[in-house]
Amino acid sequence: EQVVGCIAAVSSSLHVGKAGPLVHTGACIASILGQGGSRKYRMTCKWLRHFKNDRDRRDLVTCGAGAGIAGAFRAPVAGVLFALETVSSRWRSALLWRAFFTTAVVAVVLRALIDICKRGRCGLFGKGGLIMFDVTSGYVNYHVIDLPPVITLAVFGGVLGSLYNFFLDKVLRLYNVINEKGRTYRLLLAATVSVCTSCCLFGLPWLAACKPCPADSREACPSIGRSGNFKKFQCPMHNYNDLASLFFNTNDDTIRNLYSNGTDHEFHITSILVFFIASYFLGIFSYGLALPSGLFVPVILTGAAYGRLVGMLIGSQSTLDHGLFAVLGSAALLGGSMRMTVSVCVVILELTNNLLMLPLVMLVLIISKTVADAFNANVYDLLVKLKGFPFLEGHAEPYMRQLSVSDVVTGPLQTFNGIEKVGRIVDILKATGHNGFPVVDEPPFSDTPLLYGLVLRSHLLVLLRKKEFISSSTASASDASKHFSPEDFAKRGSGKHDRIEDIELTAEELEMFVDLHPFTNTSPYTVVETMSLAKALILFREVGLRHLLVLPKTS
Amino acid sequence: EQVVGCIAAVSSSLHVGKAGPLVHTGACIASILGQGGSRKYRMTCKWLRHFKNDRDRRDLVTCGAGAGIAGAFRAPVAGVLFALETVSSRWRSALLWRAFFTTAVVAVVLRALIDICKRGRCGLFGKGGLIMFDVTSGYVNYHVIDLPPVITLAVFGGVLGSLYNFFLDKVLRLYNVINEKGRTYRLLLAATVSVCTSCCLFGLPWLAACKPCPADSREACPSIGRSGNFKKFQCPMHNYNDLASLFFNTNDDTIRNLYSNGTDHEFHITSILVFFIASYFLGIFSYGLALPSGLFVPVILTGAAYGRLVGMLIGSQSTLDHGLFAVLGSAALLGGSMRMTVSVCVVILELTNNLLMLPLVMLVLIISKTVADAFNANVYDLLVKLKGFPFLEGHAEPYMRQLSVSDVVTGPLQTFNGIEKVGRIVDILKATGHNGFPVVDEPPFSDTPLLYGLVLRSHLLVLLRKKEFISSSTASASDASKHFSPEDFAKRGSGKHDRIEDIELTAEELEMFVDLHPFTNTSPYTVVETMSLAKALILFREVGLRHLLVLPKTS
Repeated sequence: EQVVGCIAAVSSSLHVGKAGPLVHTGACIASILGQGGSRKYRMTCKWLRHFKNDRDRRDLVTCGAGAGIAGAFRAPVAGVLFALETVSSRWRSALLWRAFFTTAVVAVVLRALIDICKRGRCGLFGKGGLIMFDVTSGYVNYHVIDLPPVITLAVFGGVLGSLYNFFLDKVLRLYNVINEKGRTYRLLLAATVSVCTSCCLFGLPWLAACKPCPADSREACPSIGRSGNFKKFQCPMHNYNDLASLFFNTNDDTIRNLYSNGTDHEFHITSILVFFIASYFLGIFSYGLALPSGLFVPVILTGAAYGRLVGMLIGSQSTLDHGLFAVLGSAALLGGSMRMTVSVCVVILELTNNLLMLPLVMLVLIISKTVADAFNANVYDLLVKLKGFPFLEGHAEPYMRQLSVSDVVTGPLQTFNGIEKVGRIVDILKATGHNGFPVVDEPPFSDTPLLYGLVLRSHLLVLLRKKEFISSSTASASDASKHFSPEDFAKRGSGKHDRIEDIELTAEELEMFVDLHPFTNTSPYTVVETMSLAKALILFREVGLRHLLVLPKTS
Repeated sequence: EQVVGCIAAVSSSLHVGKAGPLVHTGACIASILGQGGSRKYRMTCKWLRHFKNDRDRRDLVTCGAGAGIAGAFRAPVAGVLFALETVSSRWRSALLWRAFFTTAVVAVVLRALIDICKRGRCGLFGKGGLIMFDVTSGYVNYHVIDLPPVITLAVFGGVLGSLYNFFLDKVLRLYNVINEKGRTYRLLLAATVSVCTSCCLFGLPWLAACKPCPADSREACPSIGRSGNFKKFQCPMHNYNDLASLFFNTNDDTIRNLYSNGTDHEFHITSILVFFIASYFLGIFSYGLALPSGLFVPVILTGAAYGRLVGMLIGSQSTLDHGLFAVLGSAALLGGSMRMTVSVCVVILELTNNLLMLPLVMLVLIISKTVADAFNANVYDLLVKLKGFPFLEGHAEPYMRQLSVSDVVTGPLQTFNGIEKVGRIVDILKATGHNGFPVVDEPPFSDTPLLYGLVLRSHLLVLLRKKEFISSSTASASDASKHFSPEDFAKRGSGKHDRIEDIELTAEELEMFVDLHPFTNTSPYTVVETMSLAKALILFREVGLRHLLVLPKTS
C-alpha cells in the first residue's frame, strides 16, 4: 500500500521525497515481524514469537526505519544515526548493535545489487554508485575569508528552516480541517495541489531565458527525450533552459546538478531564485496530502537552491565554489527544520563523499540549529503534536517542578478486590477505557486496605474469556493459574485486541467470583503523592512505564 | 600530569597510543569545569556554578572524552559516536547535541590550526591534513570473489581480538599484583617493559633482509636522519630494511605505510609477520603500566599488520589491494577487541576518507564482533571489572529475575527520627559509611512509624557544621531552614568532601536536637520488597539513582 502510493506520488511529480515512505515501509515490515507475522495473512512464524514484547518490537521498528534511510540514501551509517536520533526515544547499546546490523546488511545487499546493475541488467533503475552525489573533484580548500558568507548562510538557513516548520504546521492544520470533511474532499485536495504543482512546473520555465550550451559540457546539450542536465524546453538548438533543467529532472539529478562544482555560470540567478521559492512552498504544500511522502529530500533540494542563491549573492569575494554553497545550504536548512545534527552530518558526508568539508558542515549545523531553536520546535515534534499522538516529552518543563504528582491525578480511580465479582469487572471494563487497575485487598482479607498490585485490562479479558470462575468470594482457587499458559497472556499484534463487548457471559456467571491474585503484577512501580511531577516524569519516561501507581503519603 | 606522562611515554617509544590519554585529558578538563573550577588552584568561575550537578557533570565528561577522540584522530563525528557508544551509559538528545557542539568546535579549531601550520609555522607538528591516512588513490572496486578472503579475515580478526582481551586481562592482573608491592616495583616494571620493548625494536630489524629501493618510489629512499618510509638501518646505499621502516616510524606513519595501496611488494611477508606478532604482544604488555596510555592506536596498528598478512597469504586470487586488507584488518581487530561498531565504522571512514569501502568494513565489523562476543566481554568491561569500579551493568542477568529485592538487602539499616538527637547522628555517621539515611517519624509524632523521606550524609554534615540545633525534641524549629541558602548544599568538587571527624561539637551540643524535616527529600524513589531484582535494576540504572528505598509489603 505504502509502496504503491509512493510510486504513484513520485511519478506524478509531486514535490515529495522517497525517503519518508521508505522509512515508513521499513518500519511497517519490522512491525509486522514484531507481531510474529500477520495472522490475517497467515504469515506466522514460530521463531518470531521471541520478539513478542514491547521492547523488541520498538527496537525492530527503529531498525526498520534505519534500514529505510540506509536504502533511500545509500547511506548506511546515517541510517543508524537517523534511527537513533529521531525515531528512538531511548538508547541501549543492544539497540545500537541491532540497528548497525540491519543497516550493514542493507549496505551489503545494496552494494551487491549495484554490482549486478553495473553490468546493465536493470535499465535506468539503479544508476549511479554507492555515493549518490559524488561531486568532489579535487581538493577543497577554504580560509578565514570564507567564514562570513558561510555564517550568514547558516543564520538565514536557521530562520528559513524554522519558517518552514511554521508554514508546514499552518498548512497541515488547514489540511486537517479539509480532510475531516470526507474522502471526496481529501481526493479533491490532493488533485488540486497536484494540478497547481504541474502548472508551476510547466509554467515557470517560460520565465527563464534560453542560454547557449557551454562549450566544454561534460554531457550532451541540450538533452532531448532522455534524462540529462540540459533541458531544451522551448529553446532553439544548442541552447538550454536552466529553469527547466531544474524542474524537469528527478530530485536526485537536480540535487546532483546543484551540488556539482565548476558550474558557477550554468544557472542564472533569477532561475535559482524562482526554483528556490517554488520548491520551498511546493514542499510545504505537498507534504501532508493523503499520500505517502517524505520531508527529507524536498528539504535537501530546497536547501541546495538556497545555498546556490546565497553563494551567488554574497559569495563573490570568497573562494568557495557555488556547488559547495549548495551543500552547505542543504545542511543549513536540514539543521533549521529537522534539528538533527550528527545524522545530518553523516548524511551529507555519505551523500557527497567529501570529508574535508566536515568542519564547515558542522559549523553551519550548529549555527542554524541554534538560530532555529530560538523560534520553534523541530518538525517531528510539530508533526507528533499535530497528529495528536500521546507522546511524552523527554525533559521536564520548568513548571513541573512546582507541581506534585497529586496535583495531576484525575479520578475516578477504579480498583478491584483481590477476589472480585465477575459482574463488577465486566461493568468497570465497559464503563472505563483504563488499561490497568490497582488490586487492593480490602478489610475482610487483610487488616487494613492494602495495595496488592496492578492487573492489566488485557489479562482480565483473557481471564473472562477462559471462564475459570469460583463460586464464592471465600473459596480458595489456588489452581486457577494452572489452566493458563504464558502463551495466553502474550501480547497480541496491533489491531487484534480483544474487546469486552465480544465476551458473552450468562447471568449466573456474572454472579460468580474470580481470584485476581495469581494474575496481578505484585510489584508495580509506585511513587508517593508528594513527589514532584518532574521527578515522576523522569521515572515514567526513562523506565518506559505504561502505568505508575500514586500512593497517598499515609498508607 | 596526564599530558606530561603521555609525552614521556610516547617519546620513549613504548607501544601505546595517544588517543587514550587525550580522551582522559579531555574528560579531566571537563570534570574540573564541572566542579565549577578547582578551588585549590583558585580557578573558580561564577558561570560554571550552573553545571554543579551530577547529570551535567557526567555530560561534560562525556563531551570531553569525545573531544579527545576528535582531536587525536582528527575525526569529529567519530568523537561524538565514541563518546556515546563507550563512555556514556545513558543517552539523551540534549547530550547528543552537547557532544556534537564540542566536537564541532574541536573540528573547526583543528582546521584553523592546520591552516596556520600549512604556512609552515609549526615545524613537524601538525603535518598532514584533516584526514590522517588519505590513502584513496582512485576508485576501489570489489566483487563477489573478494568475499571469502574478507570473511576469513573477519573471523580470525574476531578470534584474535578476543584473545587480545584475554591476554590483556591476564597481564593486567599480573601487573596489579606487582604494582601493589610499592612504588619501586611499579617503576621497575615500567623500566623492564621499556627495555624489552627497545630490545625488540632494535633487535628484530636485524632479522630482515635488505631490499633494493623501488625505482618509482614517491619519496627519498633510503631516508636518512629524518622521518620517511624507507629506513636504511644497516643496509647499503639504495637499499632499505622493511622491518625497520615499520618499527622506527611514528605510529601514524607506520599506519599510513601499511594502509597505502600500490605497495604490495614493498614489504616481505616475514617482516609483516614479525611486526604483527611483536606489536600484538608489545601492545598488551605496554598497556597498564604506570603511565597514561591508550589502546586504540596499538590495536589499529596491529590490525593493519594483521590485514596485510592475511592479504599476502590468501588474497592472491582476489582483486583487493593489500592496503585495503590492512584497513579491513584494523576494523576486524577493533571490532574484535573493543566491540564498538558504529564509531569504528566512522573512525575508519574519517581516517581513510574512503566511503566506497563502507559495506566491506561493516561486514567485517559484524562478523568479527559476533565471533568475539562468543568468547568474552569487550575490553572496556574487562578493564572496569579489573579496576574494581562499582559499575552497574545495563542489562539484568537471567538469575536476577528469580530474586526479589528483599533477597539482596543487607543490614543493618540506620534510620533517623524526624527530630533527632545530635549525638546519635554523629555516632551513626562515624560508625557507617552510608551516604543516605531514611527519615522515619516514630509514634510520638505520628500514629504509626511512617517513612518521611531520605536525608543525605552530605546534607547532614552541612547541618552539623552550621549548628542550628534546637533544645528539645518537641520544640518547633520552623525557621531553621531560613539560615541556609541553596549554595550551602551545592555539591562540592570531588576530593573536597567534608568529613564527620573534622566537625567538633561540645558535649552540650551533642545532647541537643536537630529537626531533619526541612532538609529531607520527601519523595525518594521506593520499591516494594517483593519486586524482582531485575526490575529494580532497570529502575536504578535508567533513572540513574544513587539510593533506592525498599519498603516492606505491609507498610
